[in-house]
Amino acid sequence: MQEQADGKAKVTFSDMDVLNYHSNNFPGHGKIEMVSKTSVKSIMDLTLAYSPGVAVACLAIEADRDNLYRYTNVANSVAVISNGTRILGLGDIGIAGLPVMEGKAILFKTLGGVDAYPFILDEKDPDKFISHVRAMAQNFGGINLEDIRKPDCFYIERTLDEILDIPVFHDDQWGTAIVTLAGLFNALKLVDKKMEDIKVVVNGAGAAGIAIAEMLLNSGVKGENLQLLDSEGSIYPDRIKGMDPYKREIAEKINPYRLSLTLDQAVEGIDVLIGVSYKDAFKKSHIRKMEKDPIVFALANPVPEILPTDAIDAGAKIVATGRSDFSNQINNVLGFPAIFRGALDVRARKITENMKVAAARAIANVLPEDKLNVNNIIVKPTNPKVMIEEAGAVAKAAISNRVNQIDISVQKVKELTKRRLEFYNEYLATLTPIRKELGKL
Amino acid sequence: MQEQADGKAKVTFSDMDVLNYHSNNFPGHGKIEMVSKTSVKSIMDLTLAYSPGVAVACLAIEADRDNLYRYTNVANSVAVISNGTRILGLGDIGIAGLPVMEGKAILFKTLGGVDAYPFILDEKDPDKFISHVRAMAQNFGGINLEDIRKPDCFYIERTLDEILDIPVFHDDQWGTAIVTLAGLFNALKLVDKKMEDIKVVVNGAGAAGIAIAEMLLNSGVKGENLQLLDSEGSIYPDRIKGMDPYKREIAEKINPYRLSLTLDQAVEGIDVLIGVSYKDAFKKSHIRKMEKDPIVFALANPVPEILPTDAIDAGAKIVATGRSDFSNQINNVLGFPAIFRGALDVRARKITENMKVAAARAIANVLPEDKLNVNNIIVKPTNPKVMIEEAGAVAKAAISNRVNQIDISVQKVKELTKRRLEFYNEYLATLTPIRKELGKL
Repeated sequence: MQEQADGKAKVTFSDMDVLNYHSNNFPGHGKIEMVSKTSVKSIMDLTLAYSPGVAVACLAIEADRDNLYRYTNVANSVAVISNGTRILGLGDIGIAGLPVMEGKAILFKTLGGVDAYPFILDEKDPDKFISHVRAMAQNFGGINLEDIRKPDCFYIERTLDEILDIPVFHDDQWGTAIVTLAGLFNALKLVDKKMEDIKVVVNGAGAAGIAIAEMLLNSGVKGENLQLLDSEGSIYPDRIKGMDPYKREIAEKINPYRLSLTLDQAVEGIDVLIGVSYKDAFKKSHIRKMEKDPIVFALANPVPEILPTDAIDAGAKIVATGRSDFSNQINNVLGFPAIFRGALDVRARKITENMKVAAARAIANVLPEDKLNVNNIIVKPTNPKVMIEEAGAVAKAAISNRVNQIDISVQKVKELTKRRLEFYNEYLATLTPIRKELGKL
Repeated sequence: MQEQADGKAKVTFSDMDVLNYHSNNFPGHGKIEMVSKTSVKSIMDLTLAYSPGVAVACLAIEADRDNLYRYTNVANSVAVISNGTRILGLGDIGIAGLPVMEGKAILFKTLGGVDAYPFILDEKDPDKFISHVRAMAQNFGGINLEDIRKPDCFYIERTLDEILDIPVFHDDQWGTAIVTLAGLFNALKLVDKKMEDIKVVVNGAGAAGIAIAEMLLNSGVKGENLQLLDSEGSIYPDRIKGMDPYKREIAEKINPYRLSLTLDQAVEGIDVLIGVSYKDAFKKSHIRKMEKDPIVFALANPVPEILPTDAIDAGAKIVATGRSDFSNQINNVLGFPAIFRGALDVRARKITENMKVAAARAIANVLPEDKLNVNNIIVKPTNPKVMIEEAGAVAKAAISNRVNQIDISVQKVKELTKRRLEFYNEYLATLTPIRKELGKL
């Protein structure tokens, strides 16, 4: 990996690098493996783990459902579930998206110590999809929804959140929004502006765009200072064209003067421009119309709304993208592992708005002030401290929202997170090089 | 563990032993853990495993579905799925049965090198259950159904076997039947009798009983020499009381003279008595009525149809039970790990009758002739050789039945099985004691 100057590509890889990474990882292909935490060597082990001993554990759970969290792995597990309808920028590719879910599973484990089971269900009807997830849910401590096309993703997340008593989290909405907000907290420190004062345009009213708008409002941005745009221009309550119930809902909270603006008009005098839209959506002229010290988050993947070099050339003070090969990566990997870590450890019934904002603040605050600069507004997900602090912050917010179902101190959550990540790094990660050495399958 | 003489208890354990085994297995409770097979340390790793690199693996699968088996863990994975309606002898306890499924998962891994994901679906309607499994199936190389009440289990297995192109295997039927048959192959060697000649009574016409009858017929036992009994006595085609479509189907193949016998009548002059029924179903008087050198398999769990000491006292030559604390344990653990190992490695579309019989023969033959005696008719599942030979035999039968979807030699299947089990024992199992040391969660 090359560490280069701002706005330049840092990570280059070939197709073959990716395919090699995904195959011949003894004892199998792909990226995940299910292992035993207990000994299975003697007949006594078989007796305790399976028949007839296991009946004792079953009866303990039958007598008290809480024991499910004591004698199985449910307390530490999350299902990563998609229907394959919107995999990355690749569209509806169904089961071909499974490597994304496996990728998510290994990030859950190595960064959050969470056991994540990846699934792409072969079901595109939202109600049937919901019924499958509902039937599976009792096996898990949480549900991470992933890469589901809109507006189905909203309907699915809300319905499951209502009917299940475990956290349901659609990462394409909230993961991106939380990390965007974390980056923005730090960017605002650098330009010395406050959430309460800034004018913001969010371009793109998909899953992430609506969630970002929601979280900006929950973090102090005023509705009158926030424009959310889709291909028809800015959104307002009684707009007719291209609306859906979810746009209508957020529209009620923003743009009170019902301005109907194009992007070109909306960027006039704003402080922050956030794109969750498409390649090349932002022009240099847009940046030039912004207020002093423009902050530009161009998050379209894989090609951002404007290249960092171009944005800076047009006067942007701070530029962030979704890509690992530029500075200031808004990477949802900073979110989900620790958010679920904190939620699972307090056995949260749901993930509240406060828990999301707390996660964003924790991510922002892990970066020391003396490291904070325009090319470094957010920590890297490989920094172990961020996961520990974020898990603690999420747990704390869950407790103060009274959605926790067990009593555990924030300190204990942080300590357990630390020990879990150490366990992973000290033991399990040491096997990785051996797997490749063991050769072709 | 005490190794004692024949017919005596060998393994004793307390409830607390079981509960300790199931909890505080750092980094979580329960018995399983999902880990990463690949490195997740650098930003380059994140780029290859997740965004944006992972798109290359997705597109490769989208272009050629076979790549799903090359770049994900699907090829090595099995879902262990129940609806919780018949957990061990505990009945319908739903999610409280999850420790059984986790137990199965760790046996799949440590004995067969298979990654098994445990589920108890919250759905008792068979058609809805089938629809859930169908939606999940594309993520797995096989489906192991478990602990589903009859007759739903038959309907569910057959329907899924028809609609899915991966192996579907209801272990309570076939697992028990395969290992019973393996034990019987060896028992017959000791008394110098042949399948073609023996008279057999199978007492109990549930999932296991019907499957045992089916496999006996597939292994040479004549229909006229086989009686299958339920609470109404022996089963025959036009019997009215207590029949169902599955009993009717097996009835067509046995008992051609339509004898209506009680157990007491049916045991007269038989060579083999197999119980998959209930505690104390067999009396000493039953054994005394049998032919010379009675073979008695009393498989009810946890308390057999007759205690081995009583059966031997009544003249039984060979007694087997389902329990680990007596000699000659008919343990389905000898079946499923290696059966799926062989089936996955040839990417079998289904598990044929020949594959099942081949598994039984392989299990029987692993026990060397000089070790074979009335107190030792079957190898222990902890003998690593049995899994290797059995996986090879299953693969060979799959190839000769042309249900394999890839070309791989039987030798390669055996070699890979051996290396996978070594990998597990040399690396992953070494962590087990560390987990307990790391203390309470």
